Amino acid sequence: MTQLLPRISPRSFLTPPPFKSFNKFRTFTCSTALQKKANRNPKMATVTTKTGQAVDRLTLDSMLRRRMFYTPSFEIYGGVSGLYDYGPPGTALIANMTDLWRKHFVLEEDMLEVDCTMLTPHEILKTSGHVDKFADWMCKDPKTGEIFRADHLVEEVLENRLKGDKEARGQKVEVDAEKEAKKKKKSKEAKVVKLDDAVVKEYEETLAQIDNFDGPDLEKIIKKYDIRNPVTDGEVLPPVAFNLMFQTSIGPSSNMPGYLRPETAQGQFLNFQKLLEYNQQSMPFASASIGKSFRNEISPRAGLLRVREFLMAEIEHFVDPEGGKKHPRFQEVKDIEMSLLDRNVQLSGSTKTTKMTIGKAVEIGLVDNETLGYFLARIQLFLTKIGVDFTKLRFRQHMANEMAHYAADCWDAELETSYGWIECVGCADRSAYDLTVHKNKTGAPLVVRETRPEPLRIEEWQIDLEKKKFGPRFKKDSKTVENAVEALSQELREKLSLDLEQQGKIEIDVEGVGSGKVELDKDLIKIEKRTRVENVREYTPNVIEPSFGIGRIMYSMIEHVYWSRAGDEARGVLSFPPTVAPTKVLLVPLSTNTAFKPLTQNLTTKLRRLGVSTRVDDSSASIGKRYARNDELGTPFGITVDFQSVKDNTITLRDRDTTKQVRASEDEILQAVKSLTDGDETWADILKRLPEFTGQEVE
Amino acid sequence: MTQLLPRISPRSFLTPPPFKSFNKFRTFTCSTALQKKANRNPKMATVTTKTGQAVDRLTLDSMLRRRMFYTPSFEIYGGVSGLYDYGPPGTALIANMTDLWRKHFVLEEDMLEVDCTMLTPHEILKTSGHVDKFADWMCKDPKTGEIFRADHLVEEVLENRLKGDKEARGQKVEVDAEKEAKKKKKSKEAKVVKLDDAVVKEYEETLAQIDNFDGPDLEKIIKKYDIRNPVTDGEVLPPVAFNLMFQTSIGPSSNMPGYLRPETAQGQFLNFQKLLEYNQQSMPFASASIGKSFRNEISPRAGLLRVREFLMAEIEHFVDPEGGKKHPRFQEVKDIEMSLLDRNVQLSGSTKTTKMTIGKAVEIGLVDNETLGYFLARIQLFLTKIGVDFTKLRFRQHMANEMAHYAADCWDAELETSYGWIECVGCADRSAYDLTVHKNKTGAPLVVRETRPEPLRIEEWQIDLEKKKFGPRFKKDSKTVENAVEALSQELREKLSLDLEQQGKIEIDVEGVGSGKVELDKDLIKIEKRTRVENVREYTPNVIEPSFGIGRIMYSMIEHVYWSRAGDEARGVLSFPPTVAPTKVLLVPLSTNTAFKPLTQNLTTKLRRLGVSTRVDDSSASIGKRYARNDELGTPFGITVDFQSVKDNTITLRDRDTTKQVRASEDEILQAVKSLTDGDETWADILKRLPEFTGQEVE
Repeated sequence: MTQLLPRISPRSFLTPPPFKSFNKFRTFTCSTALQKKANRNPKMATVTTKTGQAVDRLTLDSMLRRRMFYTPSFEIYGGVSGLYDYGPPGTALIANMTDLWRKHFVLEEDMLEVDCTMLTPHEILKTSGHVDKFADWMCKDPKTGEIFRADHLVEEVLENRLKGDKEARGQKVEVDAEKEAKKKKKSKEAKVVKLDDAVVKEYEETLAQIDNFDGPDLEKIIKKYDIRNPVTDGEVLPPVAFNLMFQTSIGPSSNMPGYLRPETAQGQFLNFQKLLEYNQQSMPFASASIGKSFRNEISPRAGLLRVREFLMAEIEHFVDPEGGKKHPRFQEVKDIEMSLLDRNVQLSGSTKTTKMTIGKAVEIGLVDNETLGYFLARIQLFLTKIGVDFTKLRFRQHMANEMAHYAADCWDAELETSYGWIECVGCADRSAYDLTVHKNKTGAPLVVRETRPEPLRIEEWQIDLEKKKFGPRFKKDSKTVENAVEALSQELREKLSLDLEQQGKIEIDVEGVGSGKVELDKDLIKIEKRTRVENVREYTPNVIEPSFGIGRIMYSMIEHVYWSRAGDEARGVLSFPPTVAPTKVLLVPLSTNTAFKPLTQNLTTKLRRLGVSTRVDDSSASIGKRYARNDELGTPFGITVDFQSVKDNTITLRDRDTTKQVRASEDEILQAVKSLTDGDETWADILKRLPEFTGQEVE
Repeated sequence: MTQLLPRISPRSFLTPPPFKSFNKFRTFTCSTALQKKANRNPKMATVTTKTGQAVDRLTLDSMLRRRMFYTPSFEIYGGVSGLYDYGPPGTALIANMTDLWRKHFVLEEDMLEVDCTMLTPHEILKTSGHVDKFADWMCKDPKTGEIFRADHLVEEVLENRLKGDKEARGQKVEVDAEKEAKKKKKSKEAKVVKLDDAVVKEYEETLAQIDNFDGPDLEKIIKKYDIRNPVTDGEVLPPVAFNLMFQTSIGPSSNMPGYLRPETAQGQFLNFQKLLEYNQQSMPFASASIGKSFRNEISPRAGLLRVREFLMAEIEHFVDPEGGKKHPRFQEVKDIEMSLLDRNVQLSGSTKTTKMTIGKAVEIGLVDNETLGYFLARIQLFLTKIGVDFTKLRFRQHMANEMAHYAADCWDAELETSYGWIECVGCADRSAYDLTVHKNKTGAPLVVRETRPEPLRIEEWQIDLEKKKFGPRFKKDSKTVENAVEALSQELREKLSLDLEQQGKIEIDVEGVGSGKVELDKDLIKIEKRTRVENVREYTPNVIEPSFGIGRIMYSMIEHVYWSRAGDEARGVLSFPPTVAPTKVLLVPLSTNTAFKPLTQNLTTKLRRLGVSTRVDDSSASIGKRYARNDELGTPFGITVDFQSVKDNTITLRDRDTTKQVRASEDEILQAVKSLTDGDETWADILKRLPEFTGQEVE
């Protein structure tokens, strides 16, 4: 179908939606129809924990809320969908993840980190294309005033009819408990009506393609299948585009409309010149930014995966487009093996990934260039470092129709969760697009200038403008017209020089000025063929853009490290790597006896001095209960202080994952903790050198 | 004068404006009229660097921009006043400051850090009071459409007239170069007109009190003194209130208006119940939050000190209002000496501070309670740790008319800068105000419940509502009416019980329902005197709120650590403490000779492993130039690699502040760097134990 108004946001939480439009203003499509089908079928999509249990999302979610990893914002006021607050463990987890991100990318690669404002004036986002194209389609029920995301509405109604059909045919209906719980409140029960086989097929095909439809497509589908408000059965109005940016007004007069940024990238592009200067004119280099971005989703429903305010970490790596985009450190990563899902495989209807080193992938041209490949490998290293399960990570190449016309190549790091495969990091080669549009709009030289080893001689059509007359003639539009003239291609200049000679005037297209056409006569403009000698090479760098949705990565990673103790499904454990765990050590005095107070106080101080974040639980609950609570918080180590400790200053250290303990002197245990949390030793190492403790703490 | 509509924001960058309304919705006044006068007189306000030079703000500012500590946002699009981006050194500085803040407050005190959304629905900020009262007064010139902040306009015009008068009297006029440069573009030259002595006095008195005026006051002044647009001389319209929150709309329909938060505090209050639960019902405890907040300033003009988007770090310490608000760790800080400017001194027209230990200040009742005192001391420790000059730090107590009616006490940490004394941290005892308003509005139990040692017996007037009839009668207003009834005082209940008996009905005030009066007859309500036995004590905690403006602290601190090399005023140095410095070590190979490459590579890797942020400058500039650049960036240490290094693996280490160097083996130098950046040793310590190097690096 046609794509009149390109969209960005996808249909539902079943398919991995882009938290950022890597493909900027084009439809996001799911991997393949097959993948989509797989995601839709709950049985096929079942994901297991590392101990082989099915991920029970409802249980996990309730645990995460109980332990205040996150909580709906403004809950005492009824809450607002798509807005969540992070509680203490969530905030610490995010802080540790971004800290690692900064070390792994910014420090390791000498990137130039910037912190740009979220408030962004209209003009910048007009130029970037967001004002016109960053939209979803929505339908309104004129009677109730309800607003639906058009693709979601079509899906809900058709899925409901298919379910009714299945029931009518006496087939078993797979049920997604959470989805059902939500629906119950909102929509009617599926009517048990048998459909024609042909209709079933049509519905299924429509659902498989839902991401490919734009507004007019959706309008046709809504009419054809008589899609209505699922609750009231009322007719809905045709879909209209809804821009996903939060709008506001900057300053006291209303003449400066602005938006909350939908990504951090624009601030980095606008500062390119200064960053290049800061980098002492040396190329290539990367800027980076960690900060909140905003998207006014029509009706967000996938927990932390689709939110209206979210933390992004973005890199803009600026590279010379000539010379094949080599990367000096590619050698360091070339042997890293990755799971790649290339676009040809997807085209063939499969979602089978290929294991291949990134070196090989670049060599055979599957990944477009070394710089892109380097970042894909670095992304994988980062994700696995923070706890992502390598077997639930794949890199999916964008289909040709997913990518913007200017993009050279684009891959998403997708993580498998109970919601399906979720796009968590995008990595696109965006060519020179972004710098070019801002340069064209503002005239700022967002370019690199390099002295050529040999001067270059170029024959070309040059244009002289009569600036003195130009200003008075076009007034405030002068700069715009001038830019349009400068941008004329050599072919056009040659043709126009002929027009100018023959008719004494020419007409050129200037968007945004008058009717869009501007007439220039020979008093104002001269076009001549001349030879130009270029000593300096000037080029617009290309941009490789790795873009991380921190909240999505966090949630997916939590699913990867979540499991429950055998025989006790209610006892959840979050096996965070010590480096990202919100708290590293839980300190538990055996009881509330005051004899333990000086010891715990002293240990807290020492651990803090070692830079190991610690919490004391001196509540009266049993040791087991206190440890269970901290299993749920993902605290990797526990130190118990008992009466033996008071006597001989030995303490026990417990490992969260194995629940095994060792007992040794305070100094030895502290040294072990430091070594474990720094990642210098593993628990297995500690078990080898410190005596295991299998008894009971001494009361 | 009367205060019909209380304001928050103050008049100009000469007086320290509150980046946060510590006093929430009341006029911010400058310390005293005397202080204001001192700030206004540039000569008196001259601030010197630690080496005794006058702070040349224009030079400093141009250095900060050149080194990309910060830069106006969207500059290639013309910029937007009050919006700034931080470049690489600024971003690193802020990151290091917030990291230290987190260690100093959150980790050290086991605070519960949360991260709440910036988008905030209307209702919350209506309840908090911001919708109605968070406003400044603005005047519009109806002819040009220009908008002025009313108090700024009065100031500018009156100051200009006083200047013209001085010139007419042949007196020397003190000039603030920066202010003049800005004015030149905008307003006319001061007319040289001599004024009557009485008029001069009136103008001066008006200026001294400018912060005390509300809209109607300003309107009178504008009329009385015929204040006009300084550029066109056109008349302006009377002042109107302008709310300083950025407004937006959440979701696709326009029925959920929202704002960008003006402070991080509200999210913390709303989560009180869950935080208390997370803290296992244990009191006292504190929550904390670091994040951006927003204020739509009318016309911000004081660089980083008055911006529309800024980073805050806020603590809400919840404490039992009974028992004198003691703090268990007050002993640890009680001997810390502070510069206090108490309200009585200010009332007497002086700005003389008193040096006193915080223990003494609490003891004599100058500071209201231990908890407040504890935080004042902790704030001072934090500020001096990150580089604030103790002699340019004072704690100023709010005047009675500055504080909100509910506040028990309030102190601002003010830092002296070339802009005058700037309010950088506020620390208020806000009593139970915030939790109470949200509790009353939502009915959520934002309270603490504690089992009483002894049950309490209370005689009281109790109310029974006939809930079955209540709902149908008041419909959507039921809850509001119910809350209003619950809130009735004992006195009122007694009186109403009589009314009810005599007239069979009563009338109560219910804001927001109908006409504001609601009638209840005896079918609906019963009021009786009964005895209640209370086993559980329920109370609303009080809040002590230390609130940090990170950007303001950063800028003020930069002024404190800025100086220039004697004899070379152009060579600026920023003496950041190693812990906050954006980069800790500059690595300079003597020349671009490739022989140095492996050594610098190796050193970079080792320093990174030590967690010491490092930058290499292998440009072809001279060593001196490269060090000068890094003095401006505030990099505390420099390592030089020369040919001697290639031979014997010794390197030199340079101290930024003294420019002295030591030479030793790589291992020794690296150990010294680690020890210096961790704060374990000072440069003086290093000089004692490693040989000073006074020669030239060997080429």
